[in-house]
Amino acid sequence: MIESLNNEKIKLYAKLNDKKYRYENKLFIAPGKHLVEEAIKSNLVKEILLLQGEENTYNSDVTYVTEDILKKVSDLSNAPIVLAICHMKENTNIKGNTIILDDIKDPGNLGTIIRSAVAFNYETIILSSNSVDIYNPKVVRATEGMLFNINILTGNLPSFITELKNKGYLIYGTDVINGHKPTKELKPHALIIGSEAIGMSEEIKKLTDKNLYIKMNKNCESLNAGVSASILMYTLNEDNYE
Amino acid sequence: MIESLNNEKIKLYAKLNDKKYRYENKLFIAPGKHLVEEAIKSNLVKEILLLQGEENTYNSDVTYVTEDILKKVSDLSNAPIVLAICHMKENTNIKGNTIILDDIKDPGNLGTIIRSAVAFNYETIILSSNSVDIYNPKVVRATEGMLFNINILTGNLPSFITELKNKGYLIYGTDVINGHKPTKELKPHALIIGSEAIGMSEEIKKLTDKNLYIKMNKNCESLNAGVSASILMYTLNEDNYE
Repeated sequence: MIESLNNEKIKLYAKLNDKKYRYENKLFIAPGKHLVEEAIKSNLVKEILLLQGEENTYNSDVTYVTEDILKKVSDLSNAPIVLAICHMKENTNIKGNTIILDDIKDPGNLGTIIRSAVAFNYETIILSSNSVDIYNPKVVRATEGMLFNINILTGNLPSFITELKNKGYLIYGTDVINGHKPTKELKPHALIIGSEAIGMSEEIKKLTDKNLYIKMNKNCESLNAGVSASILMYTLNEDNYE
Repeated sequence: MIESLNNEKIKLYAKLNDKKYRYENKLFIAPGKHLVEEAIKSNLVKEILLLQGEENTYNSDVTYVTEDILKKVSDLSNAPIVLAICHMKENTNIKGNTIILDDIKDPGNLGTIIRSAVAFNYETIILSSNSVDIYNPKVVRATEGMLFNINILTGNLPSFITELKNKGYLIYGTDVINGHKPTKELKPHALIIGSEAIGMSEEIKKLTDKNLYIKMNKNCESLNAGVSASILMYTLNEDNYE
């Protein structure tokens, strides 16, 4: 049971809302029941903070805390009744179909794309160094826990793309002018999604094998980045339905 | 030129962040260059507020104001350099393919769905009375101006659905257990999307002609509501590509 906002551990946990402290400590915050359950399944929990008076349904040790502590650590005015402090994931080399994000900046979009990537059987996500941080609490919430179910790599995109090409992956990009209709792709592939503001960078554009385009009404300039990424992943991976 | 935060008009405009005042005055706020341009195209502009010193590129009268006024009216700490005060749309009867939203609560989701609806040639959107308000500034921003390009109706969903059935529309819903793979639909149809938390209400479920389901990896319970609505609209309306 911790009741003091000045407890050293609580002070450290609250700092995890700041990227610098997340990476110094290799820890991040997963707020809410569903995220805590996904964190437990993934064996990444360091400590669970549960509101005093609540029943421990988590089949795991918990530390009881006050509502003020949950507010402080979650940085949410509407505090969750439970949150987990988690170790960052140990990620492996590239495996399975892969999605590559070129400077996605909006936390909601990144979270949505991760959620859809897991839904459509992508196993690896590669983020450019200037993308929004995957452990940003808003991203973590928007993934609905699916960040625990995907292999996450961050770094220089052209190097990763070269590695993928050497492994025989088809590299898909998008192109408003010359893009093709997306259809099911049985070969191993990587799909590149450009940033919300400017799309794929010029350097990256040169590295694609095939470009796709989602045809739309002329009154609409573009789709939300999370939506277009999701439609492309769905169509490339569409399973046979019964 | 207006410089005073106490100007009566500015005080009224700032109140439009509150739903009650929006509907009392039949006005709403469209912040940012792109939204202002879309508002002008739709002839819905009452007044454009532009930051002093900026060039008027809008082919329309503007009122120059201070940054503080733009912050106050937009309710954004990172104020836009321009915003339009707009008249609410005059909506018509149901026309064209229609999307029906059963208590969508998240402003970003509603905005994304409107944007995708225009992209995929839906002409009418029907909102249940408990949905988030379409003129909520967060919704308006997330639509990227597309709310000006769609017919919007709000009210009792079973009555609207009965009207659609009488007009010969096919009513599509979603069903995790017995849903079918979505494919192109040439007949006039309406697609119902349930709320983020509980999906379609029981009353509405009974009114569908056919239910759809987006097949996904078993590790993923569900997609973001904006994403699943967009994938369904895309697949039902998929045009022939060249």
